[in-house]
Amino acid sequence: MEKYASRLEALDTSNCFNNDFLLTWEKTDDELKAVFEVADALRALRQSGLSARIFDSGLGISLFRDNSTRTRFSFASACNLLGLSVQDLDEGKSQVAHGETVRETANMISFMAEAIGIRDDMFIGKGNAYMREVAEAASVGFLDGTLEQRPTLVNLQCDLDHPTQAMADASHMITELGGIENLKGKKIAMTWAYSPSYGKPLSVPQGVCALMTRFGMDVVLAHPDGYEIMPEIEDIAKANAEKSGGSFSKTSSMKEAFEGADYVYPKSWAPFKAMEKRSKLYEDGDSDGIKALEKELLAQNSQHSDWECDSSLMAVTKNAMYLHCLPADISGVSCERGEVAADVFGKSRTSLYKQASFKPYVIAAMIFLAKAKDPAGALRLLSARGRRRILD
Amino acid sequence: MEKYASRLEALDTSNCFNNDFLLTWEKTDDELKAVFEVADALRALRQSGLSARIFDSGLGISLFRDNSTRTRFSFASACNLLGLSVQDLDEGKSQVAHGETVRETANMISFMAEAIGIRDDMFIGKGNAYMREVAEAASVGFLDGTLEQRPTLVNLQCDLDHPTQAMADASHMITELGGIENLKGKKIAMTWAYSPSYGKPLSVPQGVCALMTRFGMDVVLAHPDGYEIMPEIEDIAKANAEKSGGSFSKTSSMKEAFEGADYVYPKSWAPFKAMEKRSKLYEDGDSDGIKALEKELLAQNSQHSDWECDSSLMAVTKNAMYLHCLPADISGVSCERGEVAADVFGKSRTSLYKQASFKPYVIAAMIFLAKAKDPAGALRLLSARGRRRILD
Amino acid sequence: MEKYASRLEALDTSNCFNNDFLLTWEKTDDELKAVFEVADALRALRQSGLSARIFDSGLGISLFRDNSTRTRFSFASACNLLGLSVQDLDEGKSQVAHGETVRETANMISFMAEAIGIRDDMFIGKGNAYMREVAEAASVGFLDGTLEQRPTLVNLQCDLDHPTQAMADASHMITELGGIENLKGKKIAMTWAYSPSYGKPLSVPQGVCALMTRFGMDVVLAHPDGYEIMPEIEDIAKANAEKSGGSFSKTSSMKEAFEGADYVYPKSWAPFKAMEKRSKLYEDGDSDGIKALEKELLAQNSQHSDWECDSSLMAVTKNAMYLHCLPADISGVSCERGEVAADVFGKSRTSLYKQASFKPYVIAAMIFLAKAKDPAGALRLLSARGRRRILD
Repeated sequence: MEKYASRLEALDTSNCFNNDFLLTWEKTDDELKAVFEVADALRALRQSGLSARIFDSGLGISLFRDNSTRTRFSFASACNLLGLSVQDLDEGKSQVAHGETVRETANMISFMAEAIGIRDDMFIGKGNAYMREVAEAASVGFLDGTLEQRPTLVNLQCDLDHPTQAMADASHMITELGGIENLKGKKIAMTWAYSPSYGKPLSVPQGVCALMTRFGMDVVLAHPDGYEIMPEIEDIAKANAEKSGGSFSKTSSMKEAFEGADYVYPKSWAPFKAMEKRSKLYEDGDSDGIKALEKELLAQNSQHSDWECDSSLMAVTKNAMYLHCLPADISGVSCERGEVAADVFGKSRTSLYKQASFKPYVIAAMIFLAKAKDPAGALRLLSARGRRRILD
Repeated sequence: MEKYASRLEALDTSNCFNNDFLLTWEKTDDELKAVFEVADALRALRQSGLSARIFDSGLGISLFRDNSTRTRFSFASACNLLGLSVQDLDEGKSQVAHGETVRETANMISFMAEAIGIRDDMFIGKGNAYMREVAEAASVGFLDGTLEQRPTLVNLQCDLDHPTQAMADASHMITELGGIENLKGKKIAMTWAYSPSYGKPLSVPQGVCALMTRFGMDVVLAHPDGYEIMPEIEDIAKANAEKSGGSFSKTSSMKEAFEGADYVYPKSWAPFKAMEKRSKLYEDGDSDGIKALEKELLAQNSQHSDWECDSSLMAVTKNAMYLHCLPADISGVSCERGEVAADVFGKSRTSLYKQASFKPYVIAAMIFLAKAKDPAGALRLLSARGRRRILD
Repeated sequence: MEKYASRLEALDTSNCFNNDFLLTWEKTDDELKAVFEVADALRALRQSGLSARIFDSGLGISLFRDNSTRTRFSFASACNLLGLSVQDLDEGKSQVAHGETVRETANMISFMAEAIGIRDDMFIGKGNAYMREVAEAASVGFLDGTLEQRPTLVNLQCDLDHPTQAMADASHMITELGGIENLKGKKIAMTWAYSPSYGKPLSVPQGVCALMTRFGMDVVLAHPDGYEIMPEIEDIAKANAEKSGGSFSKTSSMKEAFEGADYVYPKSWAPFKAMEKRSKLYEDGDSDGIKALEKELLAQNSQHSDWECDSSLMAVTKNAMYLHCLPADISGVSCERGEVAADVFGKSRTSLYKQASFKPYVIAAMIFLAKAKDPAGALRLLSARGRRRILD
């Protein structure tokens, strides 16, 4: 544990305390590194059979505006690891509430809440804004004395970013490479891929482009014309690359992106502009418009069914690791034709599951850093305490 | 902690042990004061960063016959504070089960249950009766050896009373006043208010009238003709007032009730007689009758849309504190015209959230008193144990 | 505690560690006895006010493909007793997923999972097979390093067996008799009984026949022609009886089965062949076929409405104990005519609730034996630790 604690001490994490984790690009390099470090430390504690509970009691609130087994279990796992009990708040898929309702709900669910995980990725311009409303209300509630503690917000996926996913993806690569410094100069292809379904969020490609450019990677974003991500995020990726000595480039050829890549991340998403239009249609309650848009988008998708990650494409990479946030649309398995060929997926299964396994630790690390005033000291204490997770 | 413990010791709480909390008017003044005292003590523990867990393990069962984010989170928070894990039993909004089914369910959910919180406010004559059936079955199960412990029942809202709400409301006033003795002589206006929705329970006005008359307050109940609460509860309020040296009066003018009031509690509810009729219609499965009644009641409501708590009404009070159990129907915010004007609500927001924040502590105190044989000793033990809620 | 620990030590439980509990007939006599022993020990701990927590943190996952208050609460109680937090995964009543999806889900829900309880009894040939897929995937995930621990699977009811029910039933009889050796020579009538509903699983009669023949009991299976259970299970029961010195016989007369019985277990189930047909119809999505089959089966049932456990039938037994897994179809109470007469049920209520009360302890014992390398030592440790479950 000492190695994690001393590495953590070398980083400036002072601004993490009592703070939220909403967007990776709001965080300093030190803060991101601290999340990786604490996630590794928590995993090491668990592997050695020790309890990582820092909470004797307390609630972790999950606020999902979309069904999600995976994210739900990752958040529940993270909370459990630290000693929080999960309480779910399901608000349905309705358009996001505003103002009075958000303020009130934020306080009413936070009486014993140490952490609130929110997933709200359905509507462009809404999800992250909603999180900030909740965060602001929780701050006011704390200052006013309604709440005895300020719950930490963790963005479990919004319209802009998917920080717990991208951080878990990075953790996986870093672990395989043996260190964050080894990401430098590695090429990652974040590419669109064909799916017979519709309306997948933009948060994964956006999160990956914005995060991987932080570490000196060569990030190539590839998609057919018309599948653009948000221009603001491209700007962030460019600026990051410049600063870190990496690069951010774009192409409309999947093969070009794959050439010489160390990592490939082929995944379907919906065009930003269509998602923006869709948000507007929902706002107006225009169900005919929504149906028409869906039809249009599926037709548009079907013109690009050749964007499938198969073994011939993998062959042009530098023996790349195949990444995915799961579940993938696997050709001949979960659909007739999808994002990835069955043989490519099959060969990567173990790696993909490991990739996913970093998420609970990443989420727990985000909460840990917001709650422990002296996180390095807390890690040392957990180790010195030596409490077994299971009675022997 | 010593001040709470010694004050608690001065009260006779012997009858709280292994007992339920179903109606405030079944409790002695000492027992009510003990709830306030323990609630304050638990809050103080939390504020000083100490764990208030009295349970190493055990379940808190929530049994709701109505959707409820607020009550659900209050109960979950109370359970978590004391160390219980919540397990929800959602029975839907169907008419209440009886006899064999209740007996059986009560036992089947109680194997590790330390507390059962029930909300059942939909049908006059049913909710509290159902709680008693569950309580009785749990008692028998305990005596028969099916259960290793007798779970404590907490009424989270029924057809007669809303004890956790009214006790939280009182806690808020007592805290602001600096002591329960200061409630004496204060005037509280419990008034009906207009809402565009229909069929709100009677439990809040009934609970407030029955409780606030216990402490020597001058309670004025105001509503338009036809919006009577249950006559049994009015009788209880009258008897309480006589005993405590307070008063209980009625008026059909909102303004008259507000005049010189220290507290106002304007809130919509459905007429008792209409609710009784509605219960009958549900029992008979008469859906046409239910629809007709709903239409009739909405029409009746609309004749009283002037029953809105606005600044001109607030002006006739003695700078009264505005109380509400939330969520309120706020004119121009959650509805076109509702219970309260937006400016009145807005000025009171912080106070309202604080009012709500007492509920988890009140619920926890009720459970605490039913589980700790020597509650004052238990408070001292918690303080002496000094277990931090978060690892430092 | 010492008596349980030393008796446990005399049994070979080495194969329980890190293993699952899917079918009683896969377990040795020693392993079954160990479950009874640990269940009793855990109950004794609780009765003496001591904590039986062996987990500091960790998740228990419930994966139900059918609604179930009873089983849900039994599993939640077992998890809570040992210190696990429950996380539910509701997959709906859809046909069971296969292959990739199962593998992936098994890993994604297991990051912090110590135990997974699965109920999947809807389709012949599917439920137990599904559990094995999950178990295999969890094993691979553990070996691959995706998971830090191998979660233990507990069969909470499948198409073949209902081991937690049958073990709880046996626990109840053993407790009443004062020892497992006293089961020898006792006659138990596992009989079909009439129900106005349709499609009840076969897992209870199959589980009872397969388990009770292990202990030298005389097991008589009775049902009308056409209500056969799976022939494989009958073969298991026969082989068990031969080995244990008990017997397994069949009759198509309820009365004959009841004659001289020490225990009667009258319960409705659907014919195995009809269930097999039904599974096929669901697989083909043949909803007309499903409806036709349902009609046919209800008509078939109605020819046997005389298969009701009433006092005249009870009179031919040796003052038998009436067993049921609950909820029972009680004539004149939960239906016009059902499995059991109201007076017979009423006299047995206390016994039936006690029977059910063994299930949480049996489930906890199964998890305990899979998690404690030295289970006898762990029991001694729990006793020596002396941690009170409630602060005194």
